[in-house]
Amino acid sequence: MTTATHSAQAQYDLFRQRGLKLDMSRGKPAPEQLDLSNDLLDALPGFSAADGTDARNYGLGVGLPEARALFGGLLGLPAAQVVVDSSASLSLMHDVIVYALLNGVPGGQPWVGQQPVFLCPVPGYDRHFSICEARGIKMINVPLNDDGPDMDIVEQLVATDASIKGMWCVPKYSNPSGTVYSDEVVRRLAAMKTAAPDFRLMWDDAYRFHHLTDENVRIAEIIAECASAGNPDRAIVFASTSKVSWAGSGIAALASSPANIAWWTRHAGIRSIGPDKINQLRHVRLLKDVATVEALMTRHAALLKPKFDAVLAQFSAQLGDVAGVSWTVPKGGYFIDLVTPPGAAKKTIALAKEAGITLTPAGAAYPYGVDPEDSHIRIAPSFPSLLEITQAAEGIALALKVAVAG
Amino acid sequence: MTTATHSAQAQYDLFRQRGLKLDMSRGKPAPEQLDLSNDLLDALPGFSAADGTDARNYGLGVGLPEARALFGGLLGLPAAQVVVDSSASLSLMHDVIVYALLNGVPGGQPWVGQQPVFLCPVPGYDRHFSICEARGIKMINVPLNDDGPDMDIVEQLVATDASIKGMWCVPKYSNPSGTVYSDEVVRRLAAMKTAAPDFRLMWDDAYRFHHLTDENVRIAEIIAECASAGNPDRAIVFASTSKVSWAGSGIAALASSPANIAWWTRHAGIRSIGPDKINQLRHVRLLKDVATVEALMTRHAALLKPKFDAVLAQFSAQLGDVAGVSWTVPKGGYFIDLVTPPGAAKKTIALAKEAGITLTPAGAAYPYGVDPEDSHIRIAPSFPSLLEITQAAEGIALALKVAVAG
Repeated sequence: MTTATHSAQAQYDLFRQRGLKLDMSRGKPAPEQLDLSNDLLDALPGFSAADGTDARNYGLGVGLPEARALFGGLLGLPAAQVVVDSSASLSLMHDVIVYALLNGVPGGQPWVGQQPVFLCPVPGYDRHFSICEARGIKMINVPLNDDGPDMDIVEQLVATDASIKGMWCVPKYSNPSGTVYSDEVVRRLAAMKTAAPDFRLMWDDAYRFHHLTDENVRIAEIIAECASAGNPDRAIVFASTSKVSWAGSGIAALASSPANIAWWTRHAGIRSIGPDKINQLRHVRLLKDVATVEALMTRHAALLKPKFDAVLAQFSAQLGDVAGVSWTVPKGGYFIDLVTPPGAAKKTIALAKEAGITLTPAGAAYPYGVDPEDSHIRIAPSFPSLLEITQAAEGIALALKVAVAG
Repeated sequence: MTTATHSAQAQYDLFRQRGLKLDMSRGKPAPEQLDLSNDLLDALPGFSAADGTDARNYGLGVGLPEARALFGGLLGLPAAQVVVDSSASLSLMHDVIVYALLNGVPGGQPWVGQQPVFLCPVPGYDRHFSICEARGIKMINVPLNDDGPDMDIVEQLVATDASIKGMWCVPKYSNPSGTVYSDEVVRRLAAMKTAAPDFRLMWDDAYRFHHLTDENVRIAEIIAECASAGNPDRAIVFASTSKVSWAGSGIAALASSPANIAWWTRHAGIRSIGPDKINQLRHVRLLKDVATVEALMTRHAALLKPKFDAVLAQFSAQLGDVAGVSWTVPKGGYFIDLVTPPGAAKKTIALAKEAGITLTPAGAAYPYGVDPEDSHIRIAPSFPSLLEITQAAEGIALALKVAVAG
């Protein structure tokens, strides 16, 4: 044992004695962020929608006109290509998969008898992978490069294997790496030849407005690119206000081609007589338009940025000279991907746990929970206070140092 | 042509000239009923749940403790056997079917490969049948007698055919006939032998509190009966506030055995990180407890009863002496079933349409939209005003008289 590793162990032991108790396992907004939307608690002045619909009653499965217009503005699409439904986009993604499995998407047969496969850029979002695993869709990992999924691999796979029915994409500030897809990658995804005629891009635009810098990254718009490339029905875009207003009580949107919107509306109409339109009215009142949403997101960023900076500062200070360790510096989103030397992620997470810090389980960012190199740790700085997150980052760094020394 | 039928035609023609325009196709609450819950618009005093949960954030897929307790009280069950989720029970029913199809219920394999069949007491609720039709479950009609489904037929079918995986039941004030299941029928459903080990009763307790008389009908409790009969996992009960508070913005509950609740929670947790808990808080604040809900339902009944009475009075006056015509006199619920001589329902509905009255399509109360005798018309008196509904009932009666005369 060298002096350096002895020191790492000693520092970790001291840290552990502080008796911290911190849950950093999920990307939950902090209470201060939720406070930004407390105007949602205000009484509505009424419940008539723009078209005269009584928002308290049944109906209007596609959502209120003003809610569709709001998301249309945010997504750069005509309101007619947007439906607003549910309180969470995850549920809309799940239901797209269900309808595709049991009924098939436009131009295809039900997936359920076809041993369907999805491509999964990794590391990625665990809840995407859980949907596939739970509902019987096989997953294939594809590497996520700095500019998005490795398109040479993706193009080759989808061109030859008709059982590949879809692909998960978080195109901007990807969970957990913060990756931003380049315009070229977006265009290749839109234009690539797929052996399956009913291939779908599940385009989770979860962090579209969730910037951490003034750069306010913009990328090519997938629906327009798919239309230009002659594949108008390929992409289904998902967005929500979960990390704009309230995480459990927001509104969500699905956007796609007219054919996909008609398909969705038909199938969602079997499940429900209409969404919670009162909550849509509340959100339209709070969020108004693109400028209002952007101003709100700037306030979120002001709360989040110091927490990200604190984590990055601790990592730089503690891990800057540790061989094989790196981390992402995201321009938006909710996560930092801490990359350890192969085989050190699980051990680091276990050591952090002993020191009172709960992290997302190792492997969570991979299909079936298996990180083949055991080298990725998802850091979620949003929920803890600035003091807590600073301490936690120190603890994680110390745990990692002990893990690589051992 | 007799004088009587000539007179019917003349009366109908006169009615038609009034140029009415009335949609009676669905059982929507009237605006005055929705007004009863306008306190939901009031600002909440806060967003902390009974257990300290911040209702604005992710999590708690089973619902807030106080919302589960509220429904537990309403359903006569421990809160632990109740989950509160979504804004509509129809969505919970749909998702139970989806999880059963793709994953199987406790004690069974996925239904999707087994050519599953459901028994459907008829006439019944069209949206139940739409779920089966859309998701690939075959339906078999069983007669709905005055005391519930014909149990001799049901018992014989489920005992011999293992592909029969479930049955739709609206046990009280059934849609559209207002039928109340007798305690004996409830007990036979709970105790009957089923060839399928994974048979489920989809128990849509949609009108549990929706009385139209002071009798406030109570029936045997299916979950307790199933447990007593040694079939604890057989029944899944659904309820909601859709016709208690607001039809589009209520809260819904699913209740069942601990094993089914665990199963549901696991599968719903794949679809969502948690329900809209703020709306649950709002509802707990408005609805408080069983006594408060019962008082509210008395006010609904006071608005609905005169409308039902007006329809019944018109039918008695116009149709009392028409051979082969009858109608139900419900003690609760939202519908009257107008029974015509065989072959007259479609024609009556078409004639009513010409006179400006939109009714639920003929056959809607039957699987696949096919009423084998073409003799049932669902009357939904709730939404129109008292004047409108009185006129509409007159017009429907006149249309029926012309239909049977022609």
